[in-house]
Amino acid sequence: MNQADFRATHWQLSERARKLTSSAIREILKVTERPEVISFAGGLPSPATFPVEQMRRASEHILRDQPSAALQYSATEGFMPLREWVAARYSVGGAHIRASQVLITTGSQQALDLLGKVLVDPASRVLVETPTYLGALQSFSLFEPNYVQVPTDEHGLIPERLDAALIEGARLLYAQPNFQNPTGRRLPLERRRALAEFAQRAAFPIIEDDPYGALDYAGAPLPTMLSMAPDHIVHLGSFSKVLAPGLRVGYIIAPEELHFKLVQAKQATDLHTPSLTQRIVHEVVKDGFLDQHVPTIRALYRDQCAAMLAALEHHMPAGVEWNRPEGGMFVWVTLPKHIDTMKLLEAAIEQHVAFVPGGPFFANQAEHNTLRLSFVTVPPAKIDEGVAKLGALIRARL
Amino acid sequence: MNQADFRATHWQLSERARKLTSSAIREILKVTERPEVISFAGGLPSPATFPVEQMRRASEHILRDQPSAALQYSATEGFMPLREWVAARYSVGGAHIRASQVLITTGSQQALDLLGKVLVDPASRVLVETPTYLGALQSFSLFEPNYVQVPTDEHGLIPERLDAALIEGARLLYAQPNFQNPTGRRLPLERRRALAEFAQRAAFPIIEDDPYGALDYAGAPLPTMLSMAPDHIVHLGSFSKVLAPGLRVGYIIAPEELHFKLVQAKQATDLHTPSLTQRIVHEVVKDGFLDQHVPTIRALYRDQCAAMLAALEHHMPAGVEWNRPEGGMFVWVTLPKHIDTMKLLEAAIEQHVAFVPGGPFFANQAEHNTLRLSFVTVPPAKIDEGVAKLGALIRARL
Repeated sequence: MNQADFRATHWQLSERARKLTSSAIREILKVTERPEVISFAGGLPSPATFPVEQMRRASEHILRDQPSAALQYSATEGFMPLREWVAARYSVGGAHIRASQVLITTGSQQALDLLGKVLVDPASRVLVETPTYLGALQSFSLFEPNYVQVPTDEHGLIPERLDAALIEGARLLYAQPNFQNPTGRRLPLERRRALAEFAQRAAFPIIEDDPYGALDYAGAPLPTMLSMAPDHIVHLGSFSKVLAPGLRVGYIIAPEELHFKLVQAKQATDLHTPSLTQRIVHEVVKDGFLDQHVPTIRALYRDQCAAMLAALEHHMPAGVEWNRPEGGMFVWVTLPKHIDTMKLLEAAIEQHVAFVPGGPFFANQAEHNTLRLSFVTVPPAKIDEGVAKLGALIRARL
Repeated sequence: MNQADFRATHWQLSERARKLTSSAIREILKVTERPEVISFAGGLPSPATFPVEQMRRASEHILRDQPSAALQYSATEGFMPLREWVAARYSVGGAHIRASQVLITTGSQQALDLLGKVLVDPASRVLVETPTYLGALQSFSLFEPNYVQVPTDEHGLIPERLDAALIEGARLLYAQPNFQNPTGRRLPLERRRALAEFAQRAAFPIIEDDPYGALDYAGAPLPTMLSMAPDHIVHLGSFSKVLAPGLRVGYIIAPEELHFKLVQAKQATDLHTPSLTQRIVHEVVKDGFLDQHVPTIRALYRDQCAAMLAALEHHMPAGVEWNRPEGGMFVWVTLPKHIDTMKLLEAAIEQHVAFVPGGPFFANQAEHNTLRLSFVTVPPAKIDEGVAKLGALIRARL
């Protein structure tokens, strides 16, 4: 933990700022930048998947043919052709999404900030999965909610557990139905239907955060909850995992009434997402590029995942459990109850292996015997070497 | 005003969201997009000043030589060479600014959002100039402060008026000392010294927002308050007015303790400003480009300002007052008390002329007989034509 965390300023800070702490992931990532570390800690997509040549051509084209528009202030809602592209992309299987529902955001992280701004008051209840995405906890926490953990099993959130007592006074339910960060779990079709049905009766929206949906290894995506209940679901999407995260381009699809409030909040927050990066994304995707490109990412990650699962099978002692993801970037590992993965990490770092302890992903009661492994940026031979070291460290603690 | 402003969602919104309204400027800008309108309403820099060729070369170079880094997630604090460039730029005249004090933001608007997050609680007091920048009011308002207007005169904020009763419990004082938006006023040297002195005794920071500082027509800038009291001033800068706003790259220079909190807030807000746009800005500015480029912007705006002042002199009836800006993008006009500029705008729009009424720039007691004119994007002949029409409309109301 950084010393500066404990230093006070000579000025009075807001309540929310006094509660802010640096995330465990952030501090760990600093250590893992050293080249000798085999890092399963990253949430970064593999740079091998970035379509550099397409980006270069798009950028050149835009700065040649539309430089003034690409460099000038632009509409808070986002670049209209990109909004239209997003709307068309989601208007499949009978669903009809309008461009007027789409707000372009500075990455999906900003979508969480804007939703916190317009939906969350201090002490209002926010429902989250158990565990849930750490970045969402960080973002919503600035608005000082009381978190309520919705029970999950190996398939994700359990809709039947959303009873009256649990949902009383809630402002939103946040979920990642596809290959959730950190667990890699995918919500089955029946549960999506049950949640979409629930959303139509609920006094609050379900936030369907879907950064990994395109990365299902079999290329057989499940329908979104948005497609099942378009007036009752707020859907978040991102180009970070299918193009490149450094452009920071994501989007919110929301009913127009909420969209309008989100636009007002965004205007006060950063006026608009950079005009240039929005246009680059649109230029790259507009003629169907993702349909050729995404399968190459899926294939890469599927192979990396298989290498990780083989290594776990080979090196982990009995008593250690993990899931077999059907897509995405993460495997979730559960150790015997008495092993604290934060302490395990200290030992692992000494052996030049890193992962993310599971504790910080829980809003309330943390399960400290869990950890998240990312397999997307480590070559298979290194995956085996790193998992072998982890297995030995765990075995020594049994 | 948009109808959607009055529509409620079927979900419960936060207190802050219920108070959100669309800005007058925003609604006006929609009307003024029509090509037949002579618009003095814009706050947009002239696209004639965008260094398109430099941007193109920078972008090409970066996507050729450093594509992975430019497209990957990066540090929340910003691109280190750009932070170092900013620090060096401000380390003049004995001042020493460290890169560790610099946080790169998604435009200056985000700097305001982050400062609101870490400094402002509901009902805490925020001191602002009379009038002040509307975008700052919008941004801070999300954190529900009580605004206190600090009295001003034609030279800007009056330091002697910051007495104990006025500053009691304040969390920050927000000021634009150079060619303020909306008034175009520049704070004199003695007042800067008095404020810097005040800041060293105050229990809260002065936020020195300086988007227009480089645009002084004589090329004789006054020293920043940051240079006078680096541990007690938070300085905001931007590349929007000296390069291009569509890239959305700005920065906050703050004492390290506050910097660290701002970084945590930014991590939760958008993770980081796009890697690509930060690198483009750095590539363009790193070898001294601004020293040749900014004088061309100054010369253009100086001529445009002269055309506006000549037109005002020629067409305005007695009883109308305005200032003579020494830099920046705006002239502030005061009409006889009984003329409401919001109503005047309706008549002006019918004649295809637009401006921004002054009322929304006041945090509390608005002076409705004021208006802001921007002269940077209208050709001189059109400036004369537009001001002539305004003059006639005002004369008819005397």
